Amino acid sequence: MKKMEQLYEGKAKKVFKTDDENLYIVDYKDDATAFNGLKKGQIAGKGVVNNKMSNFLMQIMEKNGIPTHFVEEISDRETVVKRVEIVPLEVIIRNIAAGSFSKRFGVEEGKKLNCTTLEYCLKNDDLGDPMINDYQIIAIGAATKEDLDTIADLTFKVNDVLKAYFESINIELVDFKIEFGKTPDGQIILADEISPDTCRLWDATTHEKLDKDRFRRDMGNVEEAYAEVFKRLGL
Amino acid sequence: MKKMEQLYEGKAKKVFKTDDENLYIVDYKDDATAFNGLKKGQIAGKGVVNNKMSNFLMQIMEKNGIPTHFVEEISDRETVVKRVEIVPLEVIIRNIAAGSFSKRFGVEEGKKLNCTTLEYCLKNDDLGDPMINDYQIIAIGAATKEDLDTIADLTFKVNDVLKAYFESINIELVDFKIEFGKTPDGQIILADEISPDTCRLWDATTHEKLDKDRFRRDMGNVEEAYAEVFKRLGL
Repeated sequence: MKKMEQLYEGKAKKVFKTDDENLYIVDYKDDATAFNGLKKGQIAGKGVVNNKMSNFLMQIMEKNGIPTHFVEEISDRETVVKRVEIVPLEVIIRNIAAGSFSKRFGVEEGKKLNCTTLEYCLKNDDLGDPMINDYQIIAIGAATKEDLDTIADLTFKVNDVLKAYFESINIELVDFKIEFGKTPDGQIILADEISPDTCRLWDATTHEKLDKDRFRRDMGNVEEAYAEVFKRLGL
Repeated sequence: MKKMEQLYEGKAKKVFKTDDENLYIVDYKDDATAFNGLKKGQIAGKGVVNNKMSNFLMQIMEKNGIPTHFVEEISDRETVVKRVEIVPLEVIIRNIAAGSFSKRFGVEEGKKLNCTTLEYCLKNDDLGDPMINDYQIIAIGAATKEDLDTIADLTFKVNDVLKAYFESINIELVDFKIEFGKTPDGQIILADEISPDTCRLWDATTHEKLDKDRFRRDMGNVEEAYAEVFKRLGL
């Protein structure tokens, strides 16, 4: 496997072509951003934690019948993944009210919701990643009805598996954001990452935040929180 | 029927109790607001147009099997309606991109959409009437799954009937906002109003705007536009 030219540099990762046209290499950075890039910083060691944690969880997903982009971890920060075209949607599950949900609907953070919610945001930095519903997604051609149905099914499964796993290490899965990609043969698979950058994780006993909110909200002990999750995962 | 104490004064209407506990009287004002009340003004004669037009269209809905709150027009500006508890949702159908949809998703105004969209906004002035999806509505208890299913079914029917009717008078129904209420015995019925305050109506030939956007966007000839729609309806 040869790492070739950089295809893309995002806020937290770089993506490289390889000598296999169906595989990419993802390289995790320590850079952290929040509020659509308005807040910027670094979290020492984050790239390593997110790479290894995401790979570990993606493999748990695979074992539970959820197809993912994961192929092989090749270094502390680098992983080989399947080449996909990312569906331009942030797919968000919430088990407990927090963050933008609490602010948008005036619901106290920490409130248990009547039901688990699924929501989509259109990935578009210029527009501020606006929330979008199924009809609107189809109306503007961001995804098809069939792809959305697959995404919704897989996302609720990811929540079931992830929630149960985190419960087993005394962590409450408050909410998370995932992304899906489409393989060249048209299969929808889980892509991007699952990490404290993309999940709200609270200690189930103390409700201490073990995720990127510590960075967003200047709460301190950011590195320690990432390390704590890493440790509980046995990594 | 005796008009009794005022229950509520909204941006465009007042609602009064009557001596029949199951009936209210709605009184339409000429006041116009836009951008969540930031812009204020008056449109001379609007109250009369909206009252009569809404009553006329509500009766067309009834003839097409859509239950409404309409009971009886008792003056140019006043109508007796059934007492309902308003479901706290703005229910919006879009046939063509315009307004907040165009702005939110970066879609040119006037673009035909791949499909008709249905969207909900939570009626809450303090929160700026945020867009909300089905899961979120149920999660915060703003409506039940059953009520939402009824609302969605009725709303698409309203669109079919309304669109066909406006086509017959050479008007394009770009989008509209309706509200539903729940009667004391639990039936979901169409409430509020259907008027140039709540619909985007474009002349089908010239695409001239015949609705509240003329007020929102300081385009002039506001009263004339309302009067033109009124005339085409044969009122």
